Amino acid sequence: MSKPRPIEYADGSREVRAVYDDIKATRNVPDVNNFWKYLANDPKTLKRTWESIKEVMAPGALDPLTKEMVYLAVSVTNGCGYCTASHGAAATKAGMTPQQFAELMAVVGMANETNRLANGYRVPIDPAFEN
Amino acid sequence: MSKPRPIEYADGSREVRAVYDDIKATRNVPDVNNFWKYLANDPKTLKRTWESIKEVMAPGALDPLTKEMVYLAVSVTNGCGYCTASHGAAATKAGMTPQQFAELMAVVGMANETNRLANGYRVPIDPAFEN
Amino acid sequence: MSKPRPIEYADGSREVRAVYDDIKATRNVPDVNNFWKYLANDPKTLKRTWESIKEVMAPGALDPLTKEMVYLAVSVTNGCGYCTASHGAAATKAGMTPQQFAELMAVVGMANETNRLANGYRVPIDPAFEN
Amino acid sequence: MSKPRPIEYADGSREVRAVYDDIKATRNVPDVNNFWKYLANDPKTLKRTWESIKEVMAPGALDPLTKEMVYLAVSVTNGCGYCTASHGAAATKAGMTPQQFAELMAVVGMANETNRLANGYRVPIDPAFEN
Amino acid sequence: MSKPRPIEYADGSREVRAVYDDIKATRNVPDVNNFWKYLANDPKTLKRTWESIKEVMAPGALDPLTKEMVYLAVSVTNGCGYCTASHGAAATKAGMTPQQFAELMAVVGMANETNRLANGYRVPIDPAFEN
Amino acid sequence: MSKPRPIEYADGSREVRAVYDDIKATRNVPDVNNFWKYLANDPKTLKRTWESIKEVMAPGALDPLTKEMVYLAVSVTNGCGYCTASHGAAATKAGMTPQQFAELMAVVGMANETNRLANGYRVPIDPAFEN
Repeated sequence: MSKPRPIEYADGSREVRAVYDDIKATRNVPDVNNFWKYLANDPKTLKRTWESIKEVMAPGALDPLTKEMVYLAVSVTNGCGYCTASHGAAATKAGMTPQQFAELMAVVGMANETNRLANGYRVPIDPAFEN
Repeated sequence: MSKPRPIEYADGSREVRAVYDDIKATRNVPDVNNFWKYLANDPKTLKRTWESIKEVMAPGALDPLTKEMVYLAVSVTNGCGYCTASHGAAATKAGMTPQQFAELMAVVGMANETNRLANGYRVPIDPAFEN
Repeated sequence: MSKPRPIEYADGSREVRAVYDDIKATRNVPDVNNFWKYLANDPKTLKRTWESIKEVMAPGALDPLTKEMVYLAVSVTNGCGYCTASHGAAATKAGMTPQQFAELMAVVGMANETNRLANGYRVPIDPAFEN
Repeated sequence: MSKPRPIEYADGSREVRAVYDDIKATRNVPDVNNFWKYLANDPKTLKRTWESIKEVMAPGALDPLTKEMVYLAVSVTNGCGYCTASHGAAATKAGMTPQQFAELMAVVGMANETNRLANGYRVPIDPAFEN
Repeated sequence: MSKPRPIEYADGSREVRAVYDDIKATRNVPDVNNFWKYLANDPKTLKRTWESIKEVMAPGALDPLTKEMVYLAVSVTNGCGYCTASHGAAATKAGMTPQQFAELMAVVGMANETNRLANGYRVPIDPAFEN
Repeated sequence: MSKPRPIEYADGSREVRAVYDDIKATRNVPDVNNFWKYLANDPKTLKRTWESIKEVMAPGALDPLTKEMVYLAVSVTNGCGYCTASHGAAATKAGMTPQQFAELMAVVGMANETNRLANGYRVPIDPAFEN
């Protein structure tokens, strides 16, 4: 096995193309992102991941913009460069304004800071939070 | 220095009590959480952190519930037990329903999964995300 | 101190060259990877790290391929780009097939997801796991 | 919403009980672990997660023991206490010996160390790893 | 919103230029780093972050070099490439020698390793550490 | 294999007791911490880890207190509860004052915050940091 390579639509198996088609139709885009082209090296994971994403990111009790911003917050916290770029674009497409992005980053930053202050000071959970 | 201990209102310096008073007034609560009582061991960090949190978590382009849910998403990703408990409670107080919590966790879980799939497959950033 | 730079064999001290020689002999390779060339800025850490790696990665109760795949799983989880590339190559050299890589990534992805679901739902450890 | 609580079989909806039944049958266990009882607060995530786990952890190009050890390695790296306990037990059930556990932990430790050495020395990826 | 872009001094609002001026004066540098130029997309976060950094990194019970090395240790642990580069440079400017850098990395590496060994072996906190 | 258990001196092999003896002599303590008692389940890792720690934590270009504070900073960042407790105690023993602890936590918190701001704004490395 060498470094993973992307699989373009024309080179995909019928199973891969079916997933690509569904992504393109669901998102109304002319082509799928690199993420899917690399996952296509493993058609089962491609299919499972796409179906999970489609279910999880569908509108529900949380709207699509909120979900994309949460996705971005997690990706930034984990330092995933690809995911920060792709979900930054997705959140923008879902309507995130520059001001919303700015506030999102401010919250992500503070959460990462206070998570460590809580760890460092070894703060015990308040009894009220245990109910 | 032994293990950090909480500082109750009655034992706080005037500077500490001033922060506690502002937290209680801003949040309309009878007492501050353990997080603040431990940070009070360092009055400068207590004051700076509270003022930062107050600014960052105030309503703006994002509503308070969205901000609390993002805070919770980061805390869960980092595995901060205290923060997961305290911001779970805060998000609930801000109006998070069980269904919203469920969808939030589903998004956090998927983001953590696909962050690693992107890392592992070494997916390059799509040129479209670079503009 | 400026940015760390690699130390090539010809420029290494006798101590550094001895480690390089051992790496090349142990792994049957013509040159050492960049990782070692950068660590060579600190000959003590170079030597200690190599000796630890040699001991830890030697065949034992776990075979070398399993060890390389675990190394890759950790590197992907941590988002270490260099380590993902180098241990991906090492696992391949140890015999990892594309299908094994695919299943490895699927497990790594699911583990990262369910780790956060367990954190977020604040799941207590089952008594059976405490024995 | 208060703190999440476990849902026992008797209290589960038909959808939840169906997943529990499948877990018990697949794993040949008398009851499901706490992880599933908490996820049952969100039947869709319970079902999706279980089906994903069942697919990903099934024997394939990697055997079940290797998969469980990789799961444990990720959980230890992320510091997920619940997951370390549950997948430690699962790996043991799948046949992990104390010596295999010891070597697994040694690899996980070294990987976490060298991931940071690579980060800190800012080691560039060897051209050979890019093919 | 497209990808964030840097804001140069000439293009900054009066509020942004005031922060840039203070950074340049405090650090005695002719221009601010990219970090600040990107944060300037959100003047409130720019100002708050700079004021926090100025307070936290000022000489106190810990000297500036120690503080910069701790900053670098955290950045390396988190795998933040930008921060590793910028705080490596800042630590060097504060007087870090190559030997100090080497020992710092050695400690960071060992800490990351033993953190996982402690997690994996599920080591309970010694009673002596609870006082 | 059940849950790992500590190995007391009296129950240790000659190899384990030799390491315990060296730890006790080097640190001038009557007994070893739980960390070592658990690692003793794997005498090779016990020995290798102790020898590495002894080498890395010895006085050098960095003094022991600085090293312990860096260790604590990493442990807090990773959320390792055991390590935060044990290295908090070790730093205190090495002379860390409450004020130094407070400043250390403030730096750790800010570093974790700005690491994510740099990630989120996708800040490119300044050319000056590449030399």
